[in-house]
Amino acid sequence: MSQPLRLGIAGLGTVGIGVVRIIRQHAAMLKARTGREIVISAVCARDPDKDRGVSLSSYAWETDATALATRDDVDVFVELIGGHEGIAKDAVEAALAAGKDVVTANKALLAIHGQALAEAAEAAGRALRYEAAVAGGIPVIKALTEGLAGNDITRVVGVMNGSCNYILTRMESAGLSYEEVFAEADGLGYLEADPQLDVGGIDAAHKLAILSSIAFGTRVDFDGIALEGIDRVSIEDIHAAADMDYKIKLLGVAQKTGRGLEQRMQPCLVPDTSPLGQLDGGTNMVLLEGDAVGQIVLRGPGAGEGPTASAVLADICDIARGLRGPVFGVPADTLTASVPASAQLPAPYYLRMSLEDKPGALARIAKVLGEAGVSIDRMRQYGHEDTSAPVLIVTHKTTPAALNEALGAMEGTGVLSGTPVALRIEDV
Amino acid sequence: MSQPLRLGIAGLGTVGIGVVRIIRQHAAMLKARTGREIVISAVCARDPDKDRGVSLSSYAWETDATALATRDDVDVFVELIGGHEGIAKDAVEAALAAGKDVVTANKALLAIHGQALAEAAEAAGRALRYEAAVAGGIPVIKALTEGLAGNDITRVVGVMNGSCNYILTRMESAGLSYEEVFAEADGLGYLEADPQLDVGGIDAAHKLAILSSIAFGTRVDFDGIALEGIDRVSIEDIHAAADMDYKIKLLGVAQKTGRGLEQRMQPCLVPDTSPLGQLDGGTNMVLLEGDAVGQIVLRGPGAGEGPTASAVLADICDIARGLRGPVFGVPADTLTASVPASAQLPAPYYLRMSLEDKPGALARIAKVLGEAGVSIDRMRQYGHEDTSAPVLIVTHKTTPAALNEALGAMEGTGVLSGTPVALRIEDV
Repeated sequence: MSQPLRLGIAGLGTVGIGVVRIIRQHAAMLKARTGREIVISAVCARDPDKDRGVSLSSYAWETDATALATRDDVDVFVELIGGHEGIAKDAVEAALAAGKDVVTANKALLAIHGQALAEAAEAAGRALRYEAAVAGGIPVIKALTEGLAGNDITRVVGVMNGSCNYILTRMESAGLSYEEVFAEADGLGYLEADPQLDVGGIDAAHKLAILSSIAFGTRVDFDGIALEGIDRVSIEDIHAAADMDYKIKLLGVAQKTGRGLEQRMQPCLVPDTSPLGQLDGGTNMVLLEGDAVGQIVLRGPGAGEGPTASAVLADICDIARGLRGPVFGVPADTLTASVPASAQLPAPYYLRMSLEDKPGALARIAKVLGEAGVSIDRMRQYGHEDTSAPVLIVTHKTTPAALNEALGAMEGTGVLSGTPVALRIEDV
Repeated sequence: MSQPLRLGIAGLGTVGIGVVRIIRQHAAMLKARTGREIVISAVCARDPDKDRGVSLSSYAWETDATALATRDDVDVFVELIGGHEGIAKDAVEAALAAGKDVVTANKALLAIHGQALAEAAEAAGRALRYEAAVAGGIPVIKALTEGLAGNDITRVVGVMNGSCNYILTRMESAGLSYEEVFAEADGLGYLEADPQLDVGGIDAAHKLAILSSIAFGTRVDFDGIALEGIDRVSIEDIHAAADMDYKIKLLGVAQKTGRGLEQRMQPCLVPDTSPLGQLDGGTNMVLLEGDAVGQIVLRGPGAGEGPTASAVLADICDIARGLRGPVFGVPADTLTASVPASAQLPAPYYLRMSLEDKPGALARIAKVLGEAGVSIDRMRQYGHEDTSAPVLIVTHKTTPAALNEALGAMEGTGVLSGTPVALRIEDV
């Protein structure tokens, strides 16, 4: 009979307690599935006396995560503290140095220090696994690393921050402004302590950087992501996009191009009938595209006790079964430096602007677009009661450079009222 | 350096050639991802002289699959012949007996002989893997066996036959009858040589039986599936369902109930706004539900050279990495006998009937429903030009027994024109 797999769990917040619950409740099931008993040796959290709704008295307590990570009776260090510096990083490094396997839900840690940690893990012959770090309960790391191992991955697209998707869908359904829904979500505790992590796209970009590394065999490159949050998405754009059969999503996209690796996190339009367009509320969705498989879509809860604990358990079970593949799908020392794309691939764009109510205003706009090489696919001018006319344009595929040239030239026409909004339309 | 992993591929149809192509085209990538070279030692197909569009001259040829399966220079036998008896079964058994790992895309073989084969594989300490057997390119076996290993699985729901989904969506979009679209699909070569495998739900039921075994730790039990194909789905029902905001799908459902394991493959209604309701054409979709994760939805191509070969490669890569878990997620000798549910769980039902144009006809129907304990959620009576009036009813949750009692009693009312249609509405 195999020896039990002994865990040390650092961080007893929602997810940590979720992991403890599953291990207690499903001990027999986990043993049947992995061939080994999975037990908790020790835990660690800031306040040992807090009532967490589950009895922890049978586990050794540590107040120091590094002390926990290096205990002799711990085989796997489960890091659920969070943050890319300080305690979490120190403890993960100490665990790997002490020959422990590591399971973490820490996207920031992986996105920023993934390369060094992967090298440390592989040098030590240990696993460093992080299914819970990306898209919560969706087994997307496994799908990409193992399920699509026979594919040259061509693109990864995802909605990977449930709070942003909640805000955008709530704006549409309730007809509220970004500021109103932001305040509402913040009041309900839906946002991180630093809300910029959510609405600024940082959290989602951490996840994208991780997926991108696996997909393209490149060193994780968070800084290479063109990053824009959802704070400039207005209810007017949501309504106008809907009018043209689109939804606005905070979309992470990573793809190989002839000009380097394109990684971006930005509000984009997607067709309202596409799986991404139909994704409402806090749910996550990731599209994985490969040369053999075509497109796979994975959808599920991106956060919460159960879903995140489910992902942590998947990693623990894999380790119990003896699975110890390279951290990012290929050996870390063979990952190539990511060369950020010099420009984004051409795409159609959505433009919304107000034109002064002057004869020939629209013709002027059409002319500068044409001169910049931007051709118009669809255009709508709306009835209006004041002196400016709302106009929506969907362009054919164009380069961001041509679009920017056109936007610059528009300013010189003297017919614009205010600044035009331009949003990329993603082909999904 | 690890030794190369040597394959013997039996069956060089679309999928077999797809596998050969990937291995040739992506040799370096596969080696980087698995740490081993993956090579083809030998192949086997009926006609060695046929032009398959890819050069096979560097591989040894066998005319007998069992001879291929037992060659000394084969580590993994890749069975892409198909069929649950005869050559495929003999060769898989021979491969396992000879200590080879086996990868197969053969859903019928697993659904019918899965238990014996799993026992043989595990006794020999070999892998028997079949990602390609269920839902084509979607890594659903991996998601269920590994990705959700920390979950008590509560339900599996899927659209797993692309041809049926194509027929149903094409009926709706073109307004054609089942017979017309069937003939069209058959003419286009979309259906199996024996179309009953598709439209009778057998192919999809094979897949459901496999998923059900993994999900619930039961011996694969194809015969325990309540099976009904799509041939009684009429264009009238598709239109009427759409009128009530539903789509009709050939849905496979497996769930544990207090009365045993419920496994069924039948046309069901699903809300048209649900991911399943929005699934058009030949795409597959599987919903996996677990106590921790909630619901995960996986969507992707269910057939075709690339997607199926992608799934075969995932298995090959796992074997190259040394992954050899139990065939159905837990050791085969611990799988319990499935106890088929004595009755299906209660559900809402859709009823469509024509009533004689007599006073009080609808009241009679409502009365017998009420007497059987079936309550009405929504009801619509349509205008009509002949002597019978079309009526649609959506019931509240009811047991199939109560529904059948009501349907029986309706016959006695004398107000029915023709036989009512009843379809289950699945909560997805």
